[in-house]
Amino acid sequence: MCRWQAYSGRPIRLEDLLFNAKHSLIDQSMCSRSAETPTNGDGFGLGWYGTRDVPGLFRSIRPAWNDFNLRDLAGQVESPLFLAHVRATSLATVQETNCHPFRYKNWLFVHNGEIFEVEKIRRALLMEIAPELFSNVLGTTDSEVLFYLALTYGLERDPLGALERMAGTVEAIGKKHGIAESLWMTLGVSDGRSVWGVRYASDGQAPTLYYSKAVDDVAQLNPEVRERLGPDARLVVSEPVGKHIDAWVPVPEASALLVRGGEVELVPFRPKAPTAARA
Amino acid sequence: MCRWQAYSGRPIRLEDLLFNAKHSLIDQSMCSRSAETPTNGDGFGLGWYGTRDVPGLFRSIRPAWNDFNLRDLAGQVESPLFLAHVRATSLATVQETNCHPFRYKNWLFVHNGEIFEVEKIRRALLMEIAPELFSNVLGTTDSEVLFYLALTYGLERDPLGALERMAGTVEAIGKKHGIAESLWMTLGVSDGRSVWGVRYASDGQAPTLYYSKAVDDVAQLNPEVRERLGPDARLVVSEPVGKHIDAWVPVPEASALLVRGGEVELVPFRPKAPTAARA
Amino acid sequence: MCRWQAYSGRPIRLEDLLFNAKHSLIDQSMCSRSAETPTNGDGFGLGWYGTRDVPGLFRSIRPAWNDFNLRDLAGQVESPLFLAHVRATSLATVQETNCHPFRYKNWLFVHNGEIFEVEKIRRALLMEIAPELFSNVLGTTDSEVLFYLALTYGLERDPLGALERMAGTVEAIGKKHGIAESLWMTLGVSDGRSVWGVRYASDGQAPTLYYSKAVDDVAQLNPEVRERLGPDARLVVSEPVGKHIDAWVPVPEASALLVRGGEVELVPFRPKAPTAARA
Amino acid sequence: MCRWQAYSGRPIRLEDLLFNAKHSLIDQSMCSRSAETPTNGDGFGLGWYGTRDVPGLFRSIRPAWNDFNLRDLAGQVESPLFLAHVRATSLATVQETNCHPFRYKNWLFVHNGEIFEVEKIRRALLMEIAPELFSNVLGTTDSEVLFYLALTYGLERDPLGALERMAGTVEAIGKKHGIAESLWMTLGVSDGRSVWGVRYASDGQAPTLYYSKAVDDVAQLNPEVRERLGPDARLVVSEPVGKHIDAWVPVPEASALLVRGGEVELVPFRPKAPTAARA
Repeated sequence: MCRWQAYSGRPIRLEDLLFNAKHSLIDQSMCSRSAETPTNGDGFGLGWYGTRDVPGLFRSIRPAWNDFNLRDLAGQVESPLFLAHVRATSLATVQETNCHPFRYKNWLFVHNGEIFEVEKIRRALLMEIAPELFSNVLGTTDSEVLFYLALTYGLERDPLGALERMAGTVEAIGKKHGIAESLWMTLGVSDGRSVWGVRYASDGQAPTLYYSKAVDDVAQLNPEVRERLGPDARLVVSEPVGKHIDAWVPVPEASALLVRGGEVELVPFRPKAPTAARA
Repeated sequence: MCRWQAYSGRPIRLEDLLFNAKHSLIDQSMCSRSAETPTNGDGFGLGWYGTRDVPGLFRSIRPAWNDFNLRDLAGQVESPLFLAHVRATSLATVQETNCHPFRYKNWLFVHNGEIFEVEKIRRALLMEIAPELFSNVLGTTDSEVLFYLALTYGLERDPLGALERMAGTVEAIGKKHGIAESLWMTLGVSDGRSVWGVRYASDGQAPTLYYSKAVDDVAQLNPEVRERLGPDARLVVSEPVGKHIDAWVPVPEASALLVRGGEVELVPFRPKAPTAARA
Repeated sequence: MCRWQAYSGRPIRLEDLLFNAKHSLIDQSMCSRSAETPTNGDGFGLGWYGTRDVPGLFRSIRPAWNDFNLRDLAGQVESPLFLAHVRATSLATVQETNCHPFRYKNWLFVHNGEIFEVEKIRRALLMEIAPELFSNVLGTTDSEVLFYLALTYGLERDPLGALERMAGTVEAIGKKHGIAESLWMTLGVSDGRSVWGVRYASDGQAPTLYYSKAVDDVAQLNPEVRERLGPDARLVVSEPVGKHIDAWVPVPEASALLVRGGEVELVPFRPKAPTAARA
Repeated sequence: MCRWQAYSGRPIRLEDLLFNAKHSLIDQSMCSRSAETPTNGDGFGLGWYGTRDVPGLFRSIRPAWNDFNLRDLAGQVESPLFLAHVRATSLATVQETNCHPFRYKNWLFVHNGEIFEVEKIRRALLMEIAPELFSNVLGTTDSEVLFYLALTYGLERDPLGALERMAGTVEAIGKKHGIAESLWMTLGVSDGRSVWGVRYASDGQAPTLYYSKAVDDVAQLNPEVRERLGPDARLVVSEPVGKHIDAWVPVPEASALLVRGGEVELVPFRPKAPTAARA
C-alpha cells in the first residue's frame, strides 16, 4: 500500500539510491511489484539527517516520478541516514501532511500497511495520544496516529517496547470494536543514529520487508558497492532495489530489526497493550 | 483573518460576484481592508448549490487571484446560492482540506476568526464531536471543528440553537482551561435554502459582517442591480463589495441573521453550553 | 501515451462517463490497457460545453484518480459535449498549461501520441504558427503546437483540411531534418457542435481509437443505455469503456471521423503540406 | 514586480537570510515596499551552489510564506552563493517553470521587471535564441527569454557584454515594433563564483537595486555580522533587508555590478545590439 526505503551508512547522495539504483523507489512509485499497489503516485516524502538537531523533511503530493524539485534535492543533498516513502491510498486525502515520513524532533517514521476497519477505532486511537503531543498531529492518516501513539508509549526511551505497546493497543482497541485482526504493517523508524524496521500483521501475513546483507557479502555479487556505499551501508526496504536479488534478506513475520553502525540485529516483535493507559 | 461571501437569490454566474464586482472577493484575496489580514492568499474555496442533493465544492491552496480553474468554473457555473471564502492563516497548514467551505451532506460552513489559545483546548473540542460524525473531519482547522460541533448539537434541526450551543461549549471549555475570552468570529452557514450569518466575539469586538439591503433599496443607488440580480438577491459578506457602501448594513455584535427568500431576519446570538454533554 | 474521451449527445453529468462507467477514464489514469502508458498520472484536463460561447476548462497536474475537485465538478456539471484527457509523459514538464484539452475560443483539442525526435523540429514548428496566434500558446507541449498549427491552417473554416495540412507540415519539416516518420497520433477536436477524431501515424501504426455504435445498436447489448444517454449519444475514445467491447468500432488507420447529431462519418485522413507557408 | 536576493560569501544556512533576517525575502513575499507589487505570492524559487557542477534548484507556485518544504530546505542547506526570488505577476501563468531562478548548466538568472508591450515582440525575441539552446526554454516568461538571449550572445564567455547585447537586442526589436522604451529591469546572474547585478531601464527609471557594504563597514552598525556572515559576505537585493538601512548602497541607474571574493565593482551598463544576428 506504499513503498519505502531507509539508508544508513556513509553519507551518499540521495539520488544514488532514490533515482539511480535499478528498480529504484522512484521506479516503484510508477510500477512496483506490490500486488495491492503497483502504482504509488499519491505523494511522496523524504526525511534526511544532516548537520542539524532535526532531520530535513520534504513532502509533496505529486507523484515522485514527475517532481523536478525532488530530483534536484536528491542530486544536491548528501546524508548518512535517510528515509523515503511513496504513497498509495484509496480515496483517502492526498495532502502533504498525509505524506510520510512524519517527524517529531529528531524522529522520523514511515509506514506501509493498513488498520482494518479503522473508521471504527480512529477516534479512540486519537484519544490515546498524550495531550501534550496532540497538537503535533498535522494530518489525517492512521500512519501518523501510530507514530504519535508510539511516542506516547515511550518511543524516545525504549523504541522497540513503545512500538510493541502501540501495536498492542491498536489490536486491543480493535478487538473491543469487533475487529479481530486489525494490523497489517511494516514500519521504518529512526532517531538519526539507528534505524528500526518492523514487520507485523495480526493475521501473520504482513507486507514484505527486506534488509541488505553486509557490504562485504554484497560485494561478492557487485564489487562496486564497497566503493560506492562504504563498509557500513545498510538498507531496509519494502521491496528490493538494485540488480542483485541475493543482496537482500527477507525480514521474518512478527519481527523487528535494529540497524546501527553497519550491524543488523533481528528480534521478535510481540505487541503488548500497556497495562496502564500510557506507559 | 479570512474574507467570505454568501449569495442567495436568483441564479447568477458565480463570476458576476466573485470576479466582476468592484472590490470583489478575489480582489480582497490580494488586498482586503482587514487590518489583520490584508492578504488572504492561503487558499480559497467555493461551495455552490445546483440541481443535486449536495452542493458542489471546489477548494484549492492557490491564492484565489492566480487560479485559472477558479476563473473558469466561476464563468461557467450558475447558482442561486453559494458561499465563497479566501483564507489567511499564520503558519497553520495550508491544504485543500483546510480551506472553507466545509461540507456535510447539504450543509456548507465558512468561518472567519479565531479561537484564542486553541492549542489548549483543541483536543477537548474534538472529543465533543459525536463519534458518528468524527470520521467526516478531513482537515486540521479549528473552523472545521466548530462546524462538526454545531452538527453534533443539532445544526440540521435547529441551526441557530446548535450554533449557540457550539459557541457556548467552546467558551465553557475555554474557561476551564484558563482562557477567559476564547471566541472571535463570523460564520456563514447554509442548507441550500437559507443562509445564516453569525457575528460574535467573547470580548464583544467581533470581526466585521454585513448584509445587503433589499434590492429595491439598492436599486436607488444602482438601478442595474434589479435586472442583474433579481428582486430577492441578498448577500452576506465580511466586507462590502461593489461601488456603493450604502448598499450594506453592518450586522450588530452578538447577532445572527437568517436570509431566506429575499428577506433578512436579525436576532440576538447568545452562546449556551449544552446542559448535557450533547443536545 | 495518454488516454482521452469525447462525448456528444444529450446532456449528461460528466461523472456518468468519467467516473461511473466500468473501466472509466479515471480508472484508465491509474491502469489503462496501453502498453506504453499503463499509468496516466501526469495530470488531467476537462473541457465542457455549456451555455456560454466558450467551453469551460479545468486542468490539474494531480493524477485524476486522487483529485477531489474533479470528482465534485464532474458530479455537478452536465454537458452535451465534453472532452477529457489523462496525461502520461516521460520527464516532460508536468504543469497545468501542459494538460489537455487546449482551448482557443470555442475550440477544444486533445492529443495522444508523439512527434518523434521533436526536439529537432520544435522551433521550426513554433515558427509556423501565425504571429497573431502565437501569444495564445501558454504551455510547452508539442500537442499544443499541433493545435495552433491547425488553427493557423484554417481549423475554424475547414477543420479536416486544416488538420491534414498540419500533419503534412509536421511530416515535411520532419523529413527536412532527417526524421523519416515523425507523426504517431490520435486527435480529438471540437467546436461545441461536432467532434472530429483523427487516427494517423507516419509509419501506419497509430495509437488506438474507437467510436461507439449508434445507441440503438448498443441497446441490444445494454438496454439501459437508451434511457441513460439518449438516442444520439456518441463517444470517441482511446480505449473502450463500459462493459461491452462490442459496443465499440475501431477507427481505421489513417482515418478521420466526424460526429454530429448522433451520426458518424468516416473519411480517409491524408496529410498535405500547405503549398504556401500558410493556407 | 518581484523581489530577489543574491548572497555571496562564506557558506551560511539559507534560512539565515531568507527567513531570519528582519524584513526578509519571505516577509517581502507577503508585504514588500514595492509600490507595484506589495505582495509577491505568485511562486518563488531558490538556486544554490554546493558541491556539484550545477547548482540546486527549488521552485514552487506556492506563496513563499506558506511553503513548509522551503522552510525545511532553507533550514538544512548551507551554501556560499545562492539566489532567491519571489514572484508577482498580473494574470500571467503561475507554474514552476515560470519561477526564477532559471538555470542553464552552472548559470542562474533572476529578473525583476517588464518588457513593455512584450506581446508584440515575444515571438521575434524567441527566434533570436540560438537553435541549439531553444529546447532549454521550459516556461513561458519573458524573463527566461532574456536569459536565453544572454546565453545566445555569449554569457558564458563575456557576461557583461552578453547582457548588454541582450538588452540592446530587446530595445532594437522593440523599436522596430513601435515600442520606444521597452526595458525596465534588474537582473541577478551567477556562474557559481561571481554574482552580476544589472539595473537598467530604457526610460532611465529602473526598479530598485542595492548591494551591501563591506562587512567591516556593516559591522560598525551591527557587530554581529562579522561573526555570522564572515568577512567576504556581500548581498545584492531588490530592497534592503535587516535592521540597518545604512548597510546598503543603491546601485545607480544604467549600471552593472560584479561581486567576487567580497569585492564589488560597479561599471556602466550600456545596451548594444549585436552587429550580426548573433555574437
